Amino acid sequence: MARRTVSHEDGTIYEFAPDLDGVATVDPGTRLTVETVDSLEGTVGAESDLVESVPEEVNAATGPIEVAGASPGDVLRVEIEAIRIAEDRGRVITMEGFGLLDGHEGIEAPRTRITPVEDGAIEFAGIEVPVDPVVGTIGVAPESESYTTLVPHDHGGNLDTTAMTAGNVAYFPVFQEGAMLAMGDCKAAMADGEMCGTGSEIATEIDVTVDVVETARGIDRPLVETPDAWTALASAETLEEACELANRDAVSLLAAEHGLDATDAYMLSSLVGGLEISQVVDPLVTVRNAIPKAYLSDPFGR
Amino acid sequence: MARRTVSHEDGTIYEFAPDLDGVATVDPGTRLTVETVDSLEGTVGAESDLVESVPEEVNAATGPIEVAGASPGDVLRVEIEAIRIAEDRGRVITMEGFGLLDGHEGIEAPRTRITPVEDGAIEFAGIEVPVDPVVGTIGVAPESESYTTLVPHDHGGNLDTTAMTAGNVAYFPVFQEGAMLAMGDCKAAMADGEMCGTGSEIATEIDVTVDVVETARGIDRPLVETPDAWTALASAETLEEACELANRDAVSLLAAEHGLDATDAYMLSSLVGGLEISQVVDPLVTVRNAIPKAYLSDPFGR
Repeated sequence: MARRTVSHEDGTIYEFAPDLDGVATVDPGTRLTVETVDSLEGTVGAESDLVESVPEEVNAATGPIEVAGASPGDVLRVEIEAIRIAEDRGRVITMEGFGLLDGHEGIEAPRTRITPVEDGAIEFAGIEVPVDPVVGTIGVAPESESYTTLVPHDHGGNLDTTAMTAGNVAYFPVFQEGAMLAMGDCKAAMADGEMCGTGSEIATEIDVTVDVVETARGIDRPLVETPDAWTALASAETLEEACELANRDAVSLLAAEHGLDATDAYMLSSLVGGLEISQVVDPLVTVRNAIPKAYLSDPFGR
Repeated sequence: MARRTVSHEDGTIYEFAPDLDGVATVDPGTRLTVETVDSLEGTVGAESDLVESVPEEVNAATGPIEVAGASPGDVLRVEIEAIRIAEDRGRVITMEGFGLLDGHEGIEAPRTRITPVEDGAIEFAGIEVPVDPVVGTIGVAPESESYTTLVPHDHGGNLDTTAMTAGNVAYFPVFQEGAMLAMGDCKAAMADGEMCGTGSEIATEIDVTVDVVETARGIDRPLVETPDAWTALASAETLEEACELANRDAVSLLAAEHGLDATDAYMLSSLVGGLEISQVVDPLVTVRNAIPKAYLSDPFGR
């Protein structure tokens, strides 16, 4: 079956809200190509284009895509098969009031650097960095509150997580009928932390297969499956709070898998895999707790 | 030349202080085996031994080892060649007032779990975890303040960093004549984060070669060289502060290597490698910023 395309021209959102209307409806198992604009929506094409030239509303996510039959309590499975770069340059920016070292001595904002793409690498200040694309913003309609596409929360959103890449599978709790998947804000390359506030922001085509996991054991927050690990993602106001949430999710998963009480699962979580940083700038921050597959065969207890 | 042994029986410290006296003096280039006790010093050998049975002063670090000729402004190089487990069991504990999920529902403290060692693995609640030893506490005499061996800071100390393992090389700023290296607090296995407050605490023999790096470009905090990356380590009261320090160090290193200004180096740091979590419990926390060697050939500008 040919892939179906959903483009930013079909529709985008700037807010993950509980009551979204889908721009496309697909059945579970559908193979999709999702076309996304860069997070600054084409407004920054040269180094003289500073963040001031950007419209107030940014970080468009393509969608929402309604997945027929996905109901609250289900888990939405999004296999990321490929991310293709769809333009000849990305851009890295700083802006005032944003970024880990904002206001530190010697750190100037605003600044724009264009990163031309050639032969599988971007160039930053004469330095070649291999293209290794990341989907920055991806999520579903939340339970009750609305979140702009600039923040991450339990529905996903601006997770800016390097694990959100080709070869991995993202899982989201379904809060609303149809799940209402949307994604965008891709980077040609990004460090864990996304310290200056951006990666190399770039338009892409993302190949995904969407599916619904029937499970008696739901999830409260996004989960990413890598070749080696199940990774619990949590976003909060501080890194400490995000670490607590991600660790609590890991503890629950380990307890269920091994029939341990919470304390033993917590002690096991202190021995294997561990906490990782996704981003520290969005301004809610995102942390993950990776559990190697050797210790977790199936988080859904199927 | 045979390795020289420095044992916990030769001397241990509970405080990294500016005015330490060495228990051994070695020349740069000396190959050493450092024998360490577990962080609870043999007081927890069964699951009925709770943290209450532990003396008030714990986390002994073997040393200090005076390195002849190391002077303030130099960098001490400690190549970790091997870490051998030196007893038949480790222990994982929880204690009240300590650990990421301390006080959370279902998390009991104190609790002790013994992890027997057999055939290169520890066993936790019937689950096998491969032995992958970590040196938890390692550091030098600090500049002016004293730090118990339970906290990490710019001198090293209780860094609880999984990168502090065989095959990697640790670098410390030298603040005092002779550097005064000490180490201990090893784990048979530990997760990034050390969430419950311990790994599998265990006695070891650590093979190291100590050396002095002559450099015009010193370091402010510990640095670890892995096969693929140079990793800046920073400890602070919050994860946010530790991230800022580790990122600032990475920015300085990238700026010096590539002749970039701080802002461009910051933007580059947001594209490659990135922030990682060492531990979130000590109670000062430790974060690292990994810079792939592809972007940093030599942090010392030799």
